Order: sequence, then C-alpha cells, then structure tokens
Amino acid sequence: MKKKEIYRGDAIQLFVESVDLPNGLTIELDIVRHPGASAVVPLRDDGVVILIRQYRYAAGGYIYEIPAGKLSAGESPETCARREVEEEIGYDVSHLEKLTTIFTAPGFCDEQIHLYLGTGLTPCSQKLDEDEVIEIIEMPFPEVMEKIEDQTIRDAKSLVALQMAYGRLKT
Amino acid sequence: MKKKEIYRGDAIQLFVESVDLPNGLTIELDIVRHPGASAVVPLRDDGVVILIRQYRYAAGGYIYEIPAGKLSAGESPETCARREVEEEIGYDVSHLEKLTTIFTAPGFCDEQIHLYLGTGLTPCSQKLDEDEVIEIIEMPFPEVMEKIEDQTIRDAKSLVALQMAYGRLKT
Repeated sequence: MKKKEIYRGDAIQLFVESVDLPNGLTIELDIVRHPGASAVVPLRDDGVVILIRQYRYAAGGYIYEIPAGKLSAGESPETCARREVEEEIGYDVSHLEKLTTIFTAPGFCDEQIHLYLGTGLTPCSQKLDEDEVIEIIEMPFPEVMEKIEDQTIRDAKSLVALQMAYGRLKT
Repeated sequence: MKKKEIYRGDAIQLFVESVDLPNGLTIELDIVRHPGASAVVPLRDDGVVILIRQYRYAAGGYIYEIPAGKLSAGESPETCARREVEEEIGYDVSHLEKLTTIFTAPGFCDEQIHLYLGTGLTPCSQKLDEDEVIEIIEMPFPEVMEKIEDQTIRDAKSLVALQMAYGRLKT
C-alpha cells in the first residue's frame, strides 16, 4: 500500500493512498485522518438535556450540538467524554452509558466518535478554550426531539446520540 | 478573510483559512470542502428497508449504510437522491419525503447530507461505478432498529435517517 502525505495539521492529516479494493481494482483515495472524538448527551436528574450552541465556521454559523471533543494522545474515550462535559458545559458526570461509535464521513475520513448518555450531573466550573464560542442551552428532552424534527438540530453526532438516548429512556 | 488552497481532489478540497471568530479572536482553521450529498432510506411496500453493505477503506472494511452519494455539479438534492437509489440498489423511487439535512463533521468540514425517506419503490437495473463494492441487504425495519442498538450499523448519516424515518412511521 502506497501512501503520500499531503498535509499535517493540528487535528487532521490528509493523505493520498493507493487502495486495493476487494473487487481487484486498485484506486487512489484522498483520506483525511482524524484522532477520533467523544460526545455526550448530558441529562440532568430533572429531565433537562444540556445542549450547546457553538460557532462552527465550516457550518456557516452557530449550530446546536452536544458537548464533544477530540481524543488527546493516549486518552480513553470515556476520559475524553467526561473532560469535554466538564470543560464545555461545567458538569461532572457520575455515570456514562455507551450508546454507540459512529463513522462521521467514511467516504473520505477515518474519524470515529464515541457516543454516551451522561447522567448524575453535578455542577463544576466550565473551562472553555479561547477558540471555543459556546452558549449553553437547557432543554427538556421532548422539546429536543421537536428540534430534531423541525431541523433546528442538524449536527450528525448530536442527532444520533440524542435519538438513541431518547429511545433508551422511553423503554 | 485569507484562504490558502492546500489540495484539490476529485471529491474534497483542503484549505487553511484565516477565520474571525465572534469573540474577536482570529484563528487559522483547516477546512475540508465537499460538494454535499444525498442519502435515502429506501422502504419497500412490504416494510423492508434496502440497506447496503459497502467497502469503505477509511472505515477499515465493510459497513452498513443507506444508499447515498455526492451531488454532481448543478444537481438538485432530490435528483441526486433518486439517482443514487437507482444506481446503488436498482430501484425507482416514486415518493421522496425530506427528513433533514445534516452536518457530518462541522469542526473541520462543510459537508452537508440531505436525508430522505423513499417509498413507492419499483425495481430497475443497478448501475454501480467500478470503484463501488456493494452488497444489497434487505431487512425489516424493526430488525434495522435492533442493528442500530447492537452497534452493527455505525454510519452517521444512515443512523440519523433510519431513526428519523422509523419515528415518523410509528406516529
């Protein structure tokens, strides 16, 4: 397998790779490599979900998301999940329940995001990075589901996690 | 806004862009630009969903997905959606119902995928590209939902679309 590095950034790397397909064909693919991430549906005991409204340049403005962030080197997905909830919304999570792990864009990117439901929340201090522009939005879960249906919430990882978490709570 | 092109591939381009954040900070961001895509939950009259098992090098092997593909230049999302269902699984779709439009990876990529529920399916001939390695999987919708819960289906666009479509059918 031949592999040519095109670019190495802080979060992503771009390679052009020669790939042998199972059908015998060999093709060149542009592959974005990403360290992976964790994301959490933070659910308070009063049934309120803590969402964020975050400025995302690539999405053209503010979008609704759940707290999430990239895995640091050597960090476990669970540790990353707890860290991001603390940093982005200022809560300690006592219980993390795994929902699933998703591929966000498997056509060109190896990013996987580990998704959790986080419960047993206790307030602590928020610690935003200076390049994070985040507003906290507290929303009862049924209203969250309406905001999915009316296309207000459009971030893929958040949609998957919120829908899976809601399904588990109802059963 | 300053913008430097790093790479221009068939599907994706990579730029390093100077971005003015709403908090007054100016940062450099690595941005992958993508033409966007459409994806469809193809639901037959007998209640069976037509999934695909597709070889995805970036995901390390075969993964379960719904039919999907990139927008061609000037193509509408609906036209793309119908074309991909025909090409990838060999069905004409008589009715497309919009589910939502998602951002797959808004931290570094502008890709949006338009999601639909496709019904009124009639068989036609499949037309795979030579670099597409696809197996067709027919599955009743309740079993699809089990394959989400047991983490067999892990593709983000497919998870969002299947869960939204299932929710609408139940109500």
